[in-house]
Amino acid sequence: MEALFYEGNHSFTLKTIEKQPLQAGEVRLKVAYVGVCGTDVHIYHGKMDARVKIPQVIGHEVSGIIDEIAEDVSDWEVGEKVTVRPLNPGQEVPADNGYRHIGQHLKFIGIDSPGGMQQYWNVPAFTLHRLPQNLSLSLGAMIEPLAVACHDVRLGELKSGENAVIIGGGPIGLLIALVARQKGANVLISEVNHSRIEFIQSLGFQTVNPIEEDLVKGVESFSDGAMADVVFEVSGVQAGVTAMTQLPKVRGRIVMVAIHSEPKAVDLFRFFWREIKLIGARVYEPEDFEEAISLASSGVLPLAEMITQISPLADAQQIFEIIDQNPAGMKYLLEIDD
Amino acid sequence: MEALFYEGNHSFTLKTIEKQPLQAGEVRLKVAYVGVCGTDVHIYHGKMDARVKIPQVIGHEVSGIIDEIAEDVSDWEVGEKVTVRPLNPGQEVPADNGYRHIGQHLKFIGIDSPGGMQQYWNVPAFTLHRLPQNLSLSLGAMIEPLAVACHDVRLGELKSGENAVIIGGGPIGLLIALVARQKGANVLISEVNHSRIEFIQSLGFQTVNPIEEDLVKGVESFSDGAMADVVFEVSGVQAGVTAMTQLPKVRGRIVMVAIHSEPKAVDLFRFFWREIKLIGARVYEPEDFEEAISLASSGVLPLAEMITQISPLADAQQIFEIIDQNPAGMKYLLEIDD
Repeated sequence: MEALFYEGNHSFTLKTIEKQPLQAGEVRLKVAYVGVCGTDVHIYHGKMDARVKIPQVIGHEVSGIIDEIAEDVSDWEVGEKVTVRPLNPGQEVPADNGYRHIGQHLKFIGIDSPGGMQQYWNVPAFTLHRLPQNLSLSLGAMIEPLAVACHDVRLGELKSGENAVIIGGGPIGLLIALVARQKGANVLISEVNHSRIEFIQSLGFQTVNPIEEDLVKGVESFSDGAMADVVFEVSGVQAGVTAMTQLPKVRGRIVMVAIHSEPKAVDLFRFFWREIKLIGARVYEPEDFEEAISLASSGVLPLAEMITQISPLADAQQIFEIIDQNPAGMKYLLEIDD
Repeated sequence: MEALFYEGNHSFTLKTIEKQPLQAGEVRLKVAYVGVCGTDVHIYHGKMDARVKIPQVIGHEVSGIIDEIAEDVSDWEVGEKVTVRPLNPGQEVPADNGYRHIGQHLKFIGIDSPGGMQQYWNVPAFTLHRLPQNLSLSLGAMIEPLAVACHDVRLGELKSGENAVIIGGGPIGLLIALVARQKGANVLISEVNHSRIEFIQSLGFQTVNPIEEDLVKGVESFSDGAMADVVFEVSGVQAGVTAMTQLPKVRGRIVMVAIHSEPKAVDLFRFFWREIKLIGARVYEPEDFEEAISLASSGVLPLAEMITQISPLADAQQIFEIIDQNPAGMKYLLEIDD
């Protein structure tokens, strides 16, 4: 079988290796599609070399077919179409507060252990979610990022009729927008890239480009002065952090989706002044995967339109280079052939 | 009657003025006690000269007796013992989201309009709360800051058995500690001033001095590794902001009580990583005043022990100077004689 190894220093190598033997509790998938996540690009940039064991197969947005099942695994059949919730909770500690999806000893499969950019992938059976027959395997690889969006919207307690502002219209921001709109919210997206803006508008969303327009005034106008019930900070940059506190109404919420690797200057006065809430949200819980699968299979979301390009695994190196050169791209999938 | 005027530049003057005629909807109080709030000290320092109309009577932690009632006011009687919720909501705007206590056009009585450091004080009748007969007028002047603490604990959704960590053991931090303990929470206070630490410990609280000890380890040990359910940031300094994100358990809450007039560096990654919430809390709603009155009159809180000094209004200038020189002091009251 073929497997794509991240070798450090912006470099991937496709190697032929043996199928790994199944361990207790595991299932082997014949991988169909793997989406490229921003985290994978971060790994490619060498930013996570301290965490990733080089050489390592990465990738965690996966669809596939069950190929083989360990003897001790029940409830699954060879041939079933599945996706993977790539979280392996470790030993629980008291400060986890019972939340296994982000516990202290959590291992993220595809970062802390081998990922799905290979023909066959062994994963713990408890990570699997069934995909309905009417959902294509290519869209099946979109379930993981869609589950992130479902989690963010759920933790933001967004309700029908509320005003949601999304700072950052990349893949996750746009998926949040789609889930929020599906919940009945009024959605405005703040984005600076003109190609992205054009694409976002083609999906029927209103946008503000905060470089060219006053975002606060844009939200005022969009909401008839009511301002945002929920702001999703997905940009990861200081300008987004500066904007996020200016947009909520009194007792409005901000959901912290972006990964800010360095402390940022935050207007804490504004939290006090308007009794705003900031809500951190990370990955997903099983119910978010189920909601994502249900939404995707219902066909109400334009997920296929978000797929910028589908390429064979052998072209992965080139795809990562293209992603770096095309900030307007949305979702790139790698297709794993027989 | 005598009234104390803030004249700017660290200076107060006691003047003899006429009683003000009552306007529609107003009640005149014969003021008994006025507490000195940190905001009053801030005004004294000239930090709010842009907002305070000099010369102005300040003070908003007040107890008194109803002296006269405007003709159109019902439900109140001359001679009743009251305290004042010093909020005058202005015209409502959509972004207020229905929260009148912190609306955009809110005027804070005692800052934006004359306060209680005078013998007779006219206030809107809707600001009044009755004090029970068993509650002394001196403790009646503690209701306003106690209501702040009740509001902070309520918005933090603190429950019995939870671990609360309070960063900053000044008057508001200590009142939060008292309310939290009364709710059945386990309370740890982080404070750096040795005299304050001694006093806080004398009230039965555990403390950590983060200059001398590792606060994170202190909270770990205090909570048997569970970490904080709720952290109250009352310090207003960068060290408190840096500490606040390190202390909560997964899905723990941080209540932003302090007034951070400048943006501060915040570890937003930690919000994401542990799905922490930050909850802004400002002043109070009527129910917080009712809870504060009920708590104070039940006698379960050592409020009298928090009163550092009671001085006549004529000594106000000296009291503000003493407060500046004694960071370990808790609550200073001005007593208004006949």
